[in-house]
Amino acid sequence: MCRWLAYSGTPLLLETILYRPAHSLIDQSLHSKLGVETTNGDGFGIGWYPEHPSDTPAILKEIGPAWNNRNLREIADHVRSPLFFAHIRASTGSAVQQTNCHPFRYGRWLFMHNGAIAGFHLFRRELVLLIDPELYPHVEGTTDSEVMFHLALTFGLEDDPPAAVARMAGVVEAAGRAHGVEFPLQMTLAISDGVRLWGFRYSSQGTSRSLFYSSRVDTLRNLHPDVAFLQEVSDETRLVVSEPLGDLPGAWNEVPESTYGIVQPGHDELLPFVPQAA
Amino acid sequence: MCRWLAYSGTPLLLETILYRPAHSLIDQSLHSKLGVETTNGDGFGIGWYPEHPSDTPAILKEIGPAWNNRNLREIADHVRSPLFFAHIRASTGSAVQQTNCHPFRYGRWLFMHNGAIAGFHLFRRELVLLIDPELYPHVEGTTDSEVMFHLALTFGLEDDPPAAVARMAGVVEAAGRAHGVEFPLQMTLAISDGVRLWGFRYSSQGTSRSLFYSSRVDTLRNLHPDVAFLQEVSDETRLVVSEPLGDLPGAWNEVPESTYGIVQPGHDELLPFVPQAA
Amino acid sequence: MCRWLAYSGTPLLLETILYRPAHSLIDQSLHSKLGVETTNGDGFGIGWYPEHPSDTPAILKEIGPAWNNRNLREIADHVRSPLFFAHIRASTGSAVQQTNCHPFRYGRWLFMHNGAIAGFHLFRRELVLLIDPELYPHVEGTTDSEVMFHLALTFGLEDDPPAAVARMAGVVEAAGRAHGVEFPLQMTLAISDGVRLWGFRYSSQGTSRSLFYSSRVDTLRNLHPDVAFLQEVSDETRLVVSEPLGDLPGAWNEVPESTYGIVQPGHDELLPFVPQAA
Amino acid sequence: MCRWLAYSGTPLLLETILYRPAHSLIDQSLHSKLGVETTNGDGFGIGWYPEHPSDTPAILKEIGPAWNNRNLREIADHVRSPLFFAHIRASTGSAVQQTNCHPFRYGRWLFMHNGAIAGFHLFRRELVLLIDPELYPHVEGTTDSEVMFHLALTFGLEDDPPAAVARMAGVVEAAGRAHGVEFPLQMTLAISDGVRLWGFRYSSQGTSRSLFYSSRVDTLRNLHPDVAFLQEVSDETRLVVSEPLGDLPGAWNEVPESTYGIVQPGHDELLPFVPQAA
Repeated sequence: MCRWLAYSGTPLLLETILYRPAHSLIDQSLHSKLGVETTNGDGFGIGWYPEHPSDTPAILKEIGPAWNNRNLREIADHVRSPLFFAHIRASTGSAVQQTNCHPFRYGRWLFMHNGAIAGFHLFRRELVLLIDPELYPHVEGTTDSEVMFHLALTFGLEDDPPAAVARMAGVVEAAGRAHGVEFPLQMTLAISDGVRLWGFRYSSQGTSRSLFYSSRVDTLRNLHPDVAFLQEVSDETRLVVSEPLGDLPGAWNEVPESTYGIVQPGHDELLPFVPQAA
Repeated sequence: MCRWLAYSGTPLLLETILYRPAHSLIDQSLHSKLGVETTNGDGFGIGWYPEHPSDTPAILKEIGPAWNNRNLREIADHVRSPLFFAHIRASTGSAVQQTNCHPFRYGRWLFMHNGAIAGFHLFRRELVLLIDPELYPHVEGTTDSEVMFHLALTFGLEDDPPAAVARMAGVVEAAGRAHGVEFPLQMTLAISDGVRLWGFRYSSQGTSRSLFYSSRVDTLRNLHPDVAFLQEVSDETRLVVSEPLGDLPGAWNEVPESTYGIVQPGHDELLPFVPQAA
Repeated sequence: MCRWLAYSGTPLLLETILYRPAHSLIDQSLHSKLGVETTNGDGFGIGWYPEHPSDTPAILKEIGPAWNNRNLREIADHVRSPLFFAHIRASTGSAVQQTNCHPFRYGRWLFMHNGAIAGFHLFRRELVLLIDPELYPHVEGTTDSEVMFHLALTFGLEDDPPAAVARMAGVVEAAGRAHGVEFPLQMTLAISDGVRLWGFRYSSQGTSRSLFYSSRVDTLRNLHPDVAFLQEVSDETRLVVSEPLGDLPGAWNEVPESTYGIVQPGHDELLPFVPQAA
Repeated sequence: MCRWLAYSGTPLLLETILYRPAHSLIDQSLHSKLGVETTNGDGFGIGWYPEHPSDTPAILKEIGPAWNNRNLREIADHVRSPLFFAHIRASTGSAVQQTNCHPFRYGRWLFMHNGAIAGFHLFRRELVLLIDPELYPHVEGTTDSEVMFHLALTFGLEDDPPAAVARMAGVVEAAGRAHGVEFPLQMTLAISDGVRLWGFRYSSQGTSRSLFYSSRVDTLRNLHPDVAFLQEVSDETRLVVSEPLGDLPGAWNEVPESTYGIVQPGHDELLPFVPQAA
């Protein structure tokens, strides 16, 4: 299991979000409160869309813990971005290597995951065979997460992310159940194309890993006129996180079970998520 | 702060001690119970005296956490030793690099440390200047621990370890107090030459980090005739550890404050430790 | 491409073979003379059968270069083995990660490779599908070499290594040619079960990467009565290497094209190697 | 020994300079033509002044080779800078760790070095003692280069870089000669405060490591009107490099022996460099 955050809004130094909050993601790498593991030290990754035009988002991945990593600190202190992902990993057995770190990238798309496919070793091969042969060479690691991403890409992620994720989830559940796994899927996902940001919360059992989104900044600004940070960011600025970064009253809202949200220019949305039966 | 263990006795696969106990050192790297930090993930090291004659003990050090390290697992599963050290590090700020990992080695000597010199940055330079200029080039890292080791070497560690450690502690306390630090030293130390093993517990404040030694194996064998492990090792086999590896009744004894112990062929000893005023 | 060596004979400190020769493998990591790349700095690995009974050989793998690696130096200086492999990697694009380093292990078996499957990206998926589904979860990396190993295991490596390698080679050539690759396979292989050591040299084009074996020690001892090393090792001691470790006259013999050799207790053999048409 | 480059001019993606040229620094990490070592694979570092205002330049350092590093590629592909340093290291024995990688930073200042202090182990302690005690805690590694930087800071680098470097060089030469080293200093240096860039070429023996600077862009544009890159950068754009990045006629000029240059807004300068006798 892992912890992650996704930021969309006014371009900020990554440091503002990654290090400065009281219970920042870096703090969570040592002391997660809501995660299955308290320590998330098996590698990390960040992905960011640069301020200047760029064909792809940038990625930094390292196999050590985030909390002591100097390169992460440097990037966070010097790079600004309007939309970025950060992920800290707690391996459940697969190798600690860059190719198993999140976020994963395909063209302009970023993808990161917390959760697991139960019994994955029993039917990983079957799932991998469902990946579009054109995409197959892009799979470099051994995580269930990367397979989920490439299945979603196979099923049209670039055209309709919620539909593609629904098909992916349906295929995973079908494969798992065919192998006698009662609750095959446990996931929270963040996906972006650099403009919109999708967050999914779902598990076969209906007891999904935690996921939160931040309240509208204009609402928070009224509640907390003295919080300087809220003066610096636009009304549309939004965070989606595995666990709250602090305890500002009114700031955090749980994403309901079996739900996905879209953070986008204009009105954001929360919608029900149902796997598409395979 | 850190956690460590030192083993002396019947040659064993390192795995027997490092991984197999319920609350093994590897488990402590994620979930220390008695340490200042619960996570000790900023590098690790092991040092072992080979079974065949060797000029020096061997060392393996890596900068990632112990819990996910495959090389450590391989060595533990395939190397036997009659006397070995293991150390997991929680950095208090100094760089995470191999040269800051314990144990440190000089010829046949190994040294490892848990604790800290309070206010070290204020008088590190002064302490470094007290190191024998011949030894100075051997200092490769930036930890207080490595400076402590080289001070002890300067003060005759190879001839009389307790006396040399007492002088080192006296010098550290004097330097600290000259800089207004009330309680400069906090340490548990393990030192060996491959034959004997010394363990020290001391702090200026008299509230030292935890340190334990295992009971005599013949005593434990009588208490627990069904514990297979105890049948496999000699009466003289002994462990010195930052925190107990399990909860076998009667197995663990706290090293008293301001005390050092010697594990050696024949009768082991516990003796008072007093820094030698500089 | 890569460089490797395999040693079988009198138990030695690995250092004797890995570091001491004039043109040692460590030297080859910086300055290979016969390799396609002069620098082999994309990770390394060693695998050794311990002197004491062990279920499996031990493995050490790191993703940095061999030439500056302190852990490798430590193991080499302190571990003895009667049969060991060492491999230095020059990646042709796949990720630099431990799971892509050689040797690969399965139970008591070690496998390492120099060479490449031409056009591998075109038919990697097809080859992976031919791996026994029971073995599929053991594939952790993305190299052609690891796929070759698991194909050979699928085809009975544990029962008859030359036959299994012949089937593997046949399958690779068939898949490659079906994708328009004229010369799909280029390989030198070392394989061992801890008792015997097989070395293969083959390429579809008949211009294989270099491979050499050392002359019988008793022969060399007569030629060079003053070389101390030759007094220390048994008549049966043998090295198989990508390129000679020095220039002792009479010491090195080229393995002919399309040939495999067996180093074993008693008489060693050189036999023709022909892929089995798929 | 090492290789480095420094860029000052029109803000560019680092990739344009680091990867795109025919004989780029990344290529030099594998195949240096003019360096003492052909391979520079013992870690690397880049330092860049961000386009947006920043208190400090950013730094990325890793201990593996540059040529296979994915994080370097990511930063190079996504980060723009008007002034940046890149350095690839060939260790002459000191540990391969981030704190030994260049560039070094102090506030807004960057410093990197190719060369060596001959006999450094004989008088490292003496040199370290000359570092301002306030600066002493900033020394984190074990290289001669970092000591040179902190000596120059001690001698007023922030006020007058050429004078401070001259004093540093004088002190190093005096210490070396006192220990019987005939030619103590061999250096090429790059130093910047984010506005100006100083490059030094000097050795006690008068046979210094290679150093080149690029010709004025307006001159080159007249010579090579078809080279697109030259149309994209300002007249003031300048590179200082250990060895030329390609073979464009007229593009590269050797920095003479015992000389330093200043790249700055307006007229650049080349001036004689003479150590200040200690």
